[in-house]
Amino acid sequence: MKDKLLYEGKAKQVFTVADNPNLLVLSYKNDATAFNGEKKAEFQGKGRFNNLISAKVFEYLQQKGINSHFKEAINETEQLVEKTTIIPLEVVIRNVAAGSIVRRTGITEKTIFNPPLVELFYKKDELGDPLINDDHVLLLTDATEADLTKIKKMALQVNEQLQAFFKEINLQLVDFKLEFGRNASSEIVLSDEVSPDTCRLWDIGTGEKMDKDVFREDLGDLVTVYDNILSRLEAKQ
Amino acid sequence: MKDKLLYEGKAKQVFTVADNPNLLVLSYKNDATAFNGEKKAEFQGKGRFNNLISAKVFEYLQQKGINSHFKEAINETEQLVEKTTIIPLEVVIRNVAAGSIVRRTGITEKTIFNPPLVELFYKKDELGDPLINDDHVLLLTDATEADLTKIKKMALQVNEQLQAFFKEINLQLVDFKLEFGRNASSEIVLSDEVSPDTCRLWDIGTGEKMDKDVFREDLGDLVTVYDNILSRLEAKQ
Ligand SMILES: Nc1ncnc2c1ncn2[C@@H]1O[C@H](COP(=O)(O)OP(=O)(O)O)[C@@H](O)[C@H]1O
Ligand SMILES: Nc1ncnc2c1ncn2[C@@H]1O[C@H](COP(=O)(O)OP(=O)(O)O)[C@@H](O)[C@H]1O
Ligand SMILES: [Mg+2]
Ligand SMILES: [Mg+2]
Repeated sequence: MKDKLLYEGKAKQVFTVADNPNLLVLSYKNDATAFNGEKKAEFQGKGRFNNLISAKVFEYLQQKGINSHFKEAINETEQLVEKTTIIPLEVVIRNVAAGSIVRRTGITEKTIFNPPLVELFYKKDELGDPLINDDHVLLLTDATEADLTKIKKMALQVNEQLQAFFKEINLQLVDFKLEFGRNASSEIVLSDEVSPDTCRLWDIGTGEKMDKDVFREDLGDLVTVYDNILSRLEAKQ
Repeated sequence: MKDKLLYEGKAKQVFTVADNPNLLVLSYKNDATAFNGEKKAEFQGKGRFNNLISAKVFEYLQQKGINSHFKEAINETEQLVEKTTIIPLEVVIRNVAAGSIVRRTGITEKTIFNPPLVELFYKKDELGDPLINDDHVLLLTDATEADLTKIKKMALQVNEQLQAFFKEINLQLVDFKLEFGRNASSEIVLSDEVSPDTCRLWDIGTGEKMDKDVFREDLGDLVTVYDNILSRLEAKQ
């Protein structure tokens, strides 16, 4: 199925699929990076957990009517997706203040955002993925105002669904990052991954951080935490 | 007239006015600061030029129907204004790409913005005046969505008027920063200053920079340049 390596990011390798130019294989790596690539490490098993967790998230979202690139997990570390042209935006939804928003704006940590806060970052490693506003999006990407309205609406719908999804396994969805792309029919669909690498998840009982902050802040063993999330998801059904 | 020093900023001292709590005196200093206060110097005569240029700008804007805090220049370095509660935003309008937007987003220098680009920065020295989006404004200030719509509309009107104003003296208005405040009647009015410290102005003939970039980039004698702008404005009538 997997053909040629098309490109490689910080978290995944992207492969073409023999005989189908509209599909890709995303192969999850064991690498962890933080602070725009400044902090790096490798964790045996991380790629597997992210692949399996992200697959479960996308399956759930598809049941809930969110259009995405996701087809299926094809093995422990790889999934088949629709090829999209990624719109170079990191769409961040925040339910609770944590991380960069606290540093950037001085908003008190743990402030509840109601409605959830939407932030857009220009996906460009060389520039450190800067925060941008809606007008910048129109200048920096090919997204139109209507596209942007759709993207924000979809991101807020994903938030509604994922808050419920994670609550069932006793996790609070603090914030997360999404990417959107255009598929072969020019439709905007949710792409990339949704995993503990791209979400902040706090245990509802203990308040413990159960996401990439464990790596960012050296709070414990990342793989044990990701394993715990997958176990909770598997126990749920 | 001038009573007590109320507060002092990087560019101006602000005094109360005896017997009228709704007025203030803004006293323009000779200090120049750049890069969030990292670069500093003093220039004899700068306060006078900024006061007189800013006064001319506000007089013109008032003739054109823009509501502002401005009353009158009371001497060479001071002006009488309505006291306002400043909304802690730096509202930046850009007609041409220069300065921080080039560094932040990678947009090519001298790109023309049509429509003009509006950017909002949270006015907070300790945080380095970070770029924010509309949703942040609602969280960080007491401005409502309607206030923000009004502020952006007023800023774009000021831009229309000032482009014409500066064109008459052979200067291109590249970008500028505005501040807005609420007066005693709770009306949102243009406040603070509009001067070569807060605008980028390029000579239409030669392309020469005729604003605070002369100081930021050590391009020549700042006071000579500001003097030249005031002379052009005086010659115009
Ligand atoms: N469906 C898709 N089609 C094409 N590219 C995709 C798709 N989903 C994700 N990608 C892209 O795959 C690349 C690799 O992912 P990742 O390793 O997370 O990269 P990054 O280092 O940019 O975070 C990224 O550029 C991501 O945007
Ligand atoms: N009409 C006004 N009423 C009250 N404060 C004002 C008014 N106009 C300007 N200010 C404030 O005066 C202060 C001094 O100005 P300035 O020296 O430029 O300060 P800064 O260092 O914040 O740039 C600033 O906080 C500015 O917002
Ligand atoms: Mg990624
Ligand atoms: Mg100022």
